[in-house]
Amino acid sequence: MTIAQPAFVLVRPQMGENIGGAARAMLNFGLDQMRMVDPRDGWPNPKAVAMASGAGRVLDAAGVFPTTAEAIADCDYVFATTARQRGLTKPIVTPERAMEQARAMIAEGRRVAVLFGPERAGLENDDIARANAIVSVPVNPEFPSLNLAQCVLLTGYEWRRQTVEIVPEVIELAKTEFASAVEIEKLGDHYEERLEEAGFFFPEVKAEGMKMNLRNLWSRMPLTRADVQILHGILRQMVRWKERGE
Amino acid sequence: MTIAQPAFVLVRPQMGENIGGAARAMLNFGLDQMRMVDPRDGWPNPKAVAMASGAGRVLDAAGVFPTTAEAIADCDYVFATTARQRGLTKPIVTPERAMEQARAMIAEGRRVAVLFGPERAGLENDDIARANAIVSVPVNPEFPSLNLAQCVLLTGYEWRRQTVEIVPEVIELAKTEFASAVEIEKLGDHYEERLEEAGFFFPEVKAEGMKMNLRNLWSRMPLTRADVQILHGILRQMVRWKERGE
Repeated sequence: MTIAQPAFVLVRPQMGENIGGAARAMLNFGLDQMRMVDPRDGWPNPKAVAMASGAGRVLDAAGVFPTTAEAIADCDYVFATTARQRGLTKPIVTPERAMEQARAMIAEGRRVAVLFGPERAGLENDDIARANAIVSVPVNPEFPSLNLAQCVLLTGYEWRRQTVEIVPEVIELAKTEFASAVEIEKLGDHYEERLEEAGFFFPEVKAEGMKMNLRNLWSRMPLTRADVQILHGILRQMVRWKERGE
Repeated sequence: MTIAQPAFVLVRPQMGENIGGAARAMLNFGLDQMRMVDPRDGWPNPKAVAMASGAGRVLDAAGVFPTTAEAIADCDYVFATTARQRGLTKPIVTPERAMEQARAMIAEGRRVAVLFGPERAGLENDDIARANAIVSVPVNPEFPSLNLAQCVLLTGYEWRRQTVEIVPEVIELAKTEFASAVEIEKLGDHYEERLEEAGFFFPEVKAEGMKMNLRNLWSRMPLTRADVQILHGILRQMVRWKERGE
């Protein structure tokens, strides 16, 4: 039986050794729900298995996905770990606060994921735009470099610290639940498609940035399923109105 | 000028790579007072220097001592990190509590050290008997193995958490600020008017409730001015598209 816990998603990890090290760091703190997005050297990876040693079962059970969107499709709330400022409007929380929030959400039955970026450059803004909040470890600003397994270790440590004491917070939801990542993704698709047709992404040179800001807008909002229905409905209605050509 | 901080003492470390990794982990959290007791491969160690990369100055300044007793001779309070129970009567504290105590003692001018054992077997009881308290990381009892640099990392992290004012949650605003209530109100008006025209609020009997839900949606979202501009722009564009009658 699996204890409810966040999924740790390694996005485009490079070195097998670091994947194995991340598996060990997770299991050190009782976490075993690993996912990977497009590992550079393919999967399975013998170097990851060798490094994981006693934590091999975390790797055996890990899900591998081609894109970040697919890896988080069934999740309701997504944290992205990053060291740098990204110029995206988004809450930034400490690992402590993040795992406190994760514990509370998981206690309500919500599914939580934490994204970890590749070793060299970290997560791309395109991944971060799909997350609800940013987790940033409070490191020495003059020497901030943490590797992948260390970042996983500190986050796992905070998860364990937060789950020893049990004070579940509750959010009152009026006959609905929060939208999952795939619902947000589809909402983003719907708007992007229709607005593309409508000529919204203009001028061309700004189109990519406008699209990312719009994706980021949806991901950052605490949208319920009912909200998502309303937002789809608005757009469909505008299209119908246009098509009636009154 | 050195900021008052605990000394981290590596007791009989084996691999140079781990000494370098420990130096990095210390500097990640602003610590630079390293000491070593009888490093297995002598000192200086080129592998330690290579691994430390940007944290080489921590190694350059490290003191090397033949015994644990000499390494801690000038200290007033000593913590010993260990995973196993040792059958010694001694307070056992979490890293969090240990660093909270260290901060308080250092503020009073007392000198504090933390002992870290060799990779394979950890500290010997003979070392631990010289310590005032044991620090034990709350790991998964079924998979407790932490390496030297990880143990240093977690302890350093707690030191920084206890000593630096850390804001648990901020919102990064990318060149914008949150929308004011009047801007949200006007956004609500804009959508309500256009959607009224477009025949969105149907059937009549549900119109009031739909309008209220839509108002509530905008108010509940942490919208920035930039978001409000995007949302006005979306609607205006849909209207223009409709009016072009393509």
